[in-house]
Amino acid sequence: MNKGKLFMLPVPIADGGLNDTLPEHTIQTARELKFFLGENAKSARAFLKFCGHPSPIASLSIEEIGHRPDSAKVRGWLKPALEGNDIGIVSEAGCPGVADPGAQIAAEAHKLGIRVVPLVGPSSILLALMASGMDGQHFRFCGYLPIKEPARTNAIKDLERKSASSEGETQLFIETPYRNSGMLADLVKNCAPTTLILAATDISGPEERIRTFSAADWKKQDLSLPKLPTVFGILGAKRARRA
Amino acid sequence: MNKGKLFMLPVPIADGGLNDTLPEHTIQTARELKFFLGENAKSARAFLKFCGHPSPIASLSIEEIGHRPDSAKVRGWLKPALEGNDIGIVSEAGCPGVADPGAQIAAEAHKLGIRVVPLVGPSSILLALMASGMDGQHFRFCGYLPIKEPARTNAIKDLERKSASSEGETQLFIETPYRNSGMLADLVKNCAPTTLILAATDISGPEERIRTFSAADWKKQDLSLPKLPTVFGILGAKRARRA
Repeated sequence: MNKGKLFMLPVPIADGGLNDTLPEHTIQTARELKFFLGENAKSARAFLKFCGHPSPIASLSIEEIGHRPDSAKVRGWLKPALEGNDIGIVSEAGCPGVADPGAQIAAEAHKLGIRVVPLVGPSSILLALMASGMDGQHFRFCGYLPIKEPARTNAIKDLERKSASSEGETQLFIETPYRNSGMLADLVKNCAPTTLILAATDISGPEERIRTFSAADWKKQDLSLPKLPTVFGILGAKRARRA
Repeated sequence: MNKGKLFMLPVPIADGGLNDTLPEHTIQTARELKFFLGENAKSARAFLKFCGHPSPIASLSIEEIGHRPDSAKVRGWLKPALEGNDIGIVSEAGCPGVADPGAQIAAEAHKLGIRVVPLVGPSSILLALMASGMDGQHFRFCGYLPIKEPARTNAIKDLERKSASSEGETQLFIETPYRNSGMLADLVKNCAPTTLILAATDISGPEERIRTFSAADWKKQDLSLPKLPTVFGILGAKRARRA
């Protein structure tokens, strides 16, 4: 019997029409699948309804895998694929496996000889990088920075140093939305005047605002950011001059 | 007068229908624009024809920016936006500004107060990461590795060390297609048996093949890869166990 495939199935990251950020092929694949692994079962159901899935949503198999999937359950979750059924992984927003659960399930699929198929959709990290004006030839995503001092300031200075070194590269990271304004203030305060700082808020949403300025230029502006998902970036001056 | 916007406009990365990897909104935006900055003018024209742009292609403004855009020309290229026209940047494949030209134009747009808008489309780096089963919470893209020895082996060992350290993260990189098989052989030869190695070939194309195995498991397989665009990845064992 042929094994099913494991589709890494992106979902929208902001309010808007389905066709704003998902290709027809991604939407069509979501409509054809009967087995899903969802970070959150409720939001997976809402997405499938929004997609216009032709089956009654209650008839679909939707396993909730949570934010930190339990390794002991991964084999069981993949059983439908071993029995010939395609499975889709959906996270709460964006691309499964990228700053979202899904990776360890894909890893197990590779071991079991189940084909893993990534579908196109919105990733706030990638979209932020594209629009940042920062170096996209070398970049790094490092998740969340520490919250407490002095670890936080040390982390910012370390990222700035890495981005300005001869192996320099754009440093991207995220923050809990209610700390957005605090993060921007911390970056502006701790970075050299020529270091570029990116704040990319509500990407693909109605309040999208993506701005890159030097720390010196940010100081002339209002540093308050809305409490909406935001990707931050740093690029030290050395690399910026070479870009 | 209102300034125009600068759209970062992705194009397909493999053969296939337009709707396989581009959302309707991306296609529609491409159809509405009259001003383009293309890595290659000929392939930009081919893409716009493929998109069904309603204007005669010869009537559109398409500036060729090349693989390494000339900094001295960036202001001139952005002039239509200062005069109120929207502009789209297109590279030869994938997302402008990510392992492709466009970043310095976006950087100048930020300085001039021109809004930079990223649109969704295929990025081989992001799609490879999604399907890799490797850590997507911390990752790094480092372009091409050195071709000559011992720099090449040193670079592989350095990436392996970085991915396995306490700050471990997935290390992604690319190679010229005719060197794909050589790269995979070099990775398998130089990495520890438990290190995970990703080879993601022809993503979103008809010959898509994305596989992640430990170096030890790769050794049991045919290491030849087709001469098609491929993203490689490494994840040291420490991080793999924690994932």
